[in-house]
Amino acid sequence: MSEAAKTIDGWYCLHDFRLIDWTAWKMLSSDERQTAIYEFQQFLNKLNTVHEAKEGSHAFYSIVGQKADFMLMILRPTMEELNVVETEFNKLKIADYTIPGYSYVSVVELSNYLAGDEDPYENPQIRARLYPELPKAKHVCFYPMDKRRQGEDNWYMLPMEERGKLMRSHGMIGRQYAGIVKQIITGSVGFDDYEWGVTLFADDVLQFKKLVYEMRFDEVSARYGEFGAFFVGNLLDDSKLEQMLQIN
Amino acid sequence: MSEAAKTIDGWYCLHDFRLIDWTAWKMLSSDERQTAIYEFQQFLNKLNTVHEAKEGSHAFYSIVGQKADFMLMILRPTMEELNVVETEFNKLKIADYTIPGYSYVSVVELSNYLAGDEDPYENPQIRARLYPELPKAKHVCFYPMDKRRQGEDNWYMLPMEERGKLMRSHGMIGRQYAGIVKQIITGSVGFDDYEWGVTLFADDVLQFKKLVYEMRFDEVSARYGEFGAFFVGNLLDDSKLEQMLQIN
Amino acid sequence: MSEAAKTIDGWYCLHDFRLIDWTAWKMLSSDERQTAIYEFQQFLNKLNTVHEAKEGSHAFYSIVGQKADFMLMILRPTMEELNVVETEFNKLKIADYTIPGYSYVSVVELSNYLAGDEDPYENPQIRARLYPELPKAKHVCFYPMDKRRQGEDNWYMLPMEERGKLMRSHGMIGRQYAGIVKQIITGSVGFDDYEWGVTLFADDVLQFKKLVYEMRFDEVSARYGEFGAFFVGNLLDDSKLEQMLQIN
Amino acid sequence: MSEAAKTIDGWYCLHDFRLIDWTAWKMLSSDERQTAIYEFQQFLNKLNTVHEAKEGSHAFYSIVGQKADFMLMILRPTMEELNVVETEFNKLKIADYTIPGYSYVSVVELSNYLAGDEDPYENPQIRARLYPELPKAKHVCFYPMDKRRQGEDNWYMLPMEERGKLMRSHGMIGRQYAGIVKQIITGSVGFDDYEWGVTLFADDVLQFKKLVYEMRFDEVSARYGEFGAFFVGNLLDDSKLEQMLQIN
Amino acid sequence: MSEAAKTIDGWYCLHDFRLIDWTAWKMLSSDERQTAIYEFQQFLNKLNTVHEAKEGSHAFYSIVGQKADFMLMILRPTMEELNVVETEFNKLKIADYTIPGYSYVSVVELSNYLAGDEDPYENPQIRARLYPELPKAKHVCFYPMDKRRQGEDNWYMLPMEERGKLMRSHGMIGRQYAGIVKQIITGSVGFDDYEWGVTLFADDVLQFKKLVYEMRFDEVSARYGEFGAFFVGNLLDDSKLEQMLQIN
Repeated sequence: MSEAAKTIDGWYCLHDFRLIDWTAWKMLSSDERQTAIYEFQQFLNKLNTVHEAKEGSHAFYSIVGQKADFMLMILRPTMEELNVVETEFNKLKIADYTIPGYSYVSVVELSNYLAGDEDPYENPQIRARLYPELPKAKHVCFYPMDKRRQGEDNWYMLPMEERGKLMRSHGMIGRQYAGIVKQIITGSVGFDDYEWGVTLFADDVLQFKKLVYEMRFDEVSARYGEFGAFFVGNLLDDSKLEQMLQIN
Repeated sequence: MSEAAKTIDGWYCLHDFRLIDWTAWKMLSSDERQTAIYEFQQFLNKLNTVHEAKEGSHAFYSIVGQKADFMLMILRPTMEELNVVETEFNKLKIADYTIPGYSYVSVVELSNYLAGDEDPYENPQIRARLYPELPKAKHVCFYPMDKRRQGEDNWYMLPMEERGKLMRSHGMIGRQYAGIVKQIITGSVGFDDYEWGVTLFADDVLQFKKLVYEMRFDEVSARYGEFGAFFVGNLLDDSKLEQMLQIN
Repeated sequence: MSEAAKTIDGWYCLHDFRLIDWTAWKMLSSDERQTAIYEFQQFLNKLNTVHEAKEGSHAFYSIVGQKADFMLMILRPTMEELNVVETEFNKLKIADYTIPGYSYVSVVELSNYLAGDEDPYENPQIRARLYPELPKAKHVCFYPMDKRRQGEDNWYMLPMEERGKLMRSHGMIGRQYAGIVKQIITGSVGFDDYEWGVTLFADDVLQFKKLVYEMRFDEVSARYGEFGAFFVGNLLDDSKLEQMLQIN
Repeated sequence: MSEAAKTIDGWYCLHDFRLIDWTAWKMLSSDERQTAIYEFQQFLNKLNTVHEAKEGSHAFYSIVGQKADFMLMILRPTMEELNVVETEFNKLKIADYTIPGYSYVSVVELSNYLAGDEDPYENPQIRARLYPELPKAKHVCFYPMDKRRQGEDNWYMLPMEERGKLMRSHGMIGRQYAGIVKQIITGSVGFDDYEWGVTLFADDVLQFKKLVYEMRFDEVSARYGEFGAFFVGNLLDDSKLEQMLQIN
Repeated sequence: MSEAAKTIDGWYCLHDFRLIDWTAWKMLSSDERQTAIYEFQQFLNKLNTVHEAKEGSHAFYSIVGQKADFMLMILRPTMEELNVVETEFNKLKIADYTIPGYSYVSVVELSNYLAGDEDPYENPQIRARLYPELPKAKHVCFYPMDKRRQGEDNWYMLPMEERGKLMRSHGMIGRQYAGIVKQIITGSVGFDDYEWGVTLFADDVLQFKKLVYEMRFDEVSARYGEFGAFFVGNLLDDSKLEQMLQIN
């Protein structure tokens, strides 16, 4: 395979954004709602078990605005397992009170621009990035993106050295946010409508804006970035979930 | 962080546009409608209390045309609080008779092009702009926008001085409307699909058209502005709200 | 204000396109349908009273194709009145059997390119154009449009004289259709998604095609015109309305 | 009128694409379905009577894929008659079991590029093309299209001789398919969202692909063609219609 | 016909993507669900019979993400047969519990760039590609695509030798994946909204990403490729289908 297209790939990834059908949810009796919440929590517990066994990971966040009420981001070793989790969710009672909002299919990806000579799958640091334990940061940000192929601004027609140089300077910006914003890059060429998904985690939500805005002035984004929809949200722990779903 | 990307940020902001499901609303008994309106007013009163305590602010307007029947614009110190207000609205009876129309997530932002040497958060004038008391003007206008990155017209590839110069001349136009149109600029890079939201308030609705049209001839808009949907509306005070929701 | 952006503005304008929910409409009893039609006619009569008092105007047309079944175009002195008429329609019984199709918010506008030295609001001919009595022509055509801002074809970067010259030659084409096609130009910068709405009235529907097609070869449209959806329709007088809504 | 924009126009044309609501259709009793089919056939017979009287024409095809289940293409001397046929369909029982898919409003058009000196409306061959008897070919193809106005590729800025020359060579390709593919060109400037509709009829469905693909290499399409959605279908005669709608 | 537009065409092809209406499906009694599944399996068996008789072929996969729950890809000798299979599916009980997601109409196509002098339809290897037995690979990937016609990047304005040369180098990449990824190219000019559909089959889902990503750096894709939505999925054999549809 051409050097240009080499990537190192880890767990498969599904971002699943759902709206709550509040009118129908409120029409349930308090008991029915409680049963549905309990069943949903059991499902989330099962996800936690997988996470603890390091056989996958997930993130669960409420989303601000009308695009979705919550996002479930799932990491698994195979595409089939993503399908299984998705179908399992659909069979839950709570699913009957949700409406699909958006979804994204991808795989955790490390760019070839970073690769050296060693076998990356033997490198524990790289393994930690390919099979990441998703953090419980207070906030999440997700957006899909493409590299532009438009007239003079065609990323895929650039020589590889040029792309490498641009990506390194682009990576610098990300590195300034180390410890502040955790970035998970997932590749989706052949899997979904954009080429990459970007998932950011931070305790200070403003850092998403600072990072993405600063990057926009970098040539990689300024000339070559095409962005899809942006989603921003807040961590949904057990108590926040109950609070969200509770009807007085 | 690069000078180019510095901003000063204040309250988080949610614009929530809703359509009324008139057919369902009319099917309610007069008593049920009155209960729903009363509960909605209690909710609005709670928002007023926050506003009066200067712990946030909001604006409530009817929207002209089929895009929405009303807009609730909410300002709060944290992204979590936006989520809480949103969910609280969704649990109201009135919410069962509304349909989501559009929403926008952003944060009040002052551009770095204006910044001097002092700590802006110590400056009372700047604080008043970061944590604004939204006015009760007769009319509102909202639209999201991007700075263009297209061939020769790529805002993010311009040198910073050039951008600063263009923004200053752009700002001049806005300043001519001081006292006539109040402008709230909110940043949404990393939060929503466009880079900024613009909310305008005026007692003379025609001034929105005059301002936006005049700006369109300015190079910042003419060459670099990309605009989303435009919403225009009328102040919804208590009596107008009752009038709107009342069925004979 | 810059010369370039000066306009003369008249009545506010709402185009409201609705689909009929035929299945639900047919399920009504003949009596219920008759009551709903009668109430709708009363509403239309009220609009006629305003029209006759010259305090506004309106046009009512069936639309060909699936985009809408009918269009109600409303002219009023204030944006609030547009909202009132819209809400009044929504409270009618007939509204329960309609589905929103499209709407457009604008204001009758005369371009500054035509302006001389006198006060235009004192000129009876100009007043007649700013506060027009909409004709009962057999056909209507509506479309929204922008002036292009794209690479070399950027209307808003042209010098004013250039724009004036182009608009005058563009206007020549329109003037050839005087007495054949009545054109109402409404401005919507800051009010809706395009910059202008164009409403044409004619007794010979083919003249819409001839006019718009001829204009398309004119540089203003050819290089600078961006067009939204086109709607075409037939006059809905009392008997046509009854005929349309009647179920055997 | 400018030479460039002259066209010769015939019957008005409505393409009406509908999906069947299969779930609801199956819930009807066999008798109710039979009644609805019978009433639909009566409606189709009425269309046939108009066709035989040469006061209009129509085509009725099933559509492959999810965009529609069937298409009814209607030709009539006036825009009002299109509206009447459309409303008549909407009042049928069968219409309650259909969902609008897409529609297109246009008028049969012969290009000015073909015109000579004589009065075209006196020419029987031209009349046969303006008021065509739609064939009962086995297959239909429909798509709307624009001539591009983009940077260097702006059809409407070309000198008329250039356009004439290009159209003649474009027409050559069409003529090679004479007797194999029947083409009906309808103009929709001012009537619908694209500038033309193209309806093709053929007994060999592969000829649609061959014709459209060959044309795509011709400069008129290659540089100046912008295409909307494509629909392809199969003739729906009486027995095929019954077969399609029959539920065991 | 021009050399440039010659293709060799085989079976007609329908990709049918469906979502499951889980809420309604769960509301069925266990018996009703079993009956619906059994009837669906009978339908799939009939497709298998056609496949075994080599009178067509099909593929049946679950889809990951919210775009669809499953895809049925059908190959048949005529366009009419595609319509028959589609309608047959719509009449199944299971269809009442599905929602259309996306569909694509095309025909298996071999490019003229590959053609020599012999009659291709006599060549068994070419026949095997025109009338392919779809494999039971573990994974499927589908996307529609166009060749770009934009400013300097206009595929259809390139001389035929240039296109041939580019396509040969493009084909090289595909050939490196022989035995790993099976590619079915279907042409849809005149049949659906893009010019081609690409269906990939592989046991290792990551190979889709590798192949499509590597091709993206090739000039044919980099400068001339325009891509629609991407779908990725997992083989649905009998036991996986039962598992997916089973409700406890």
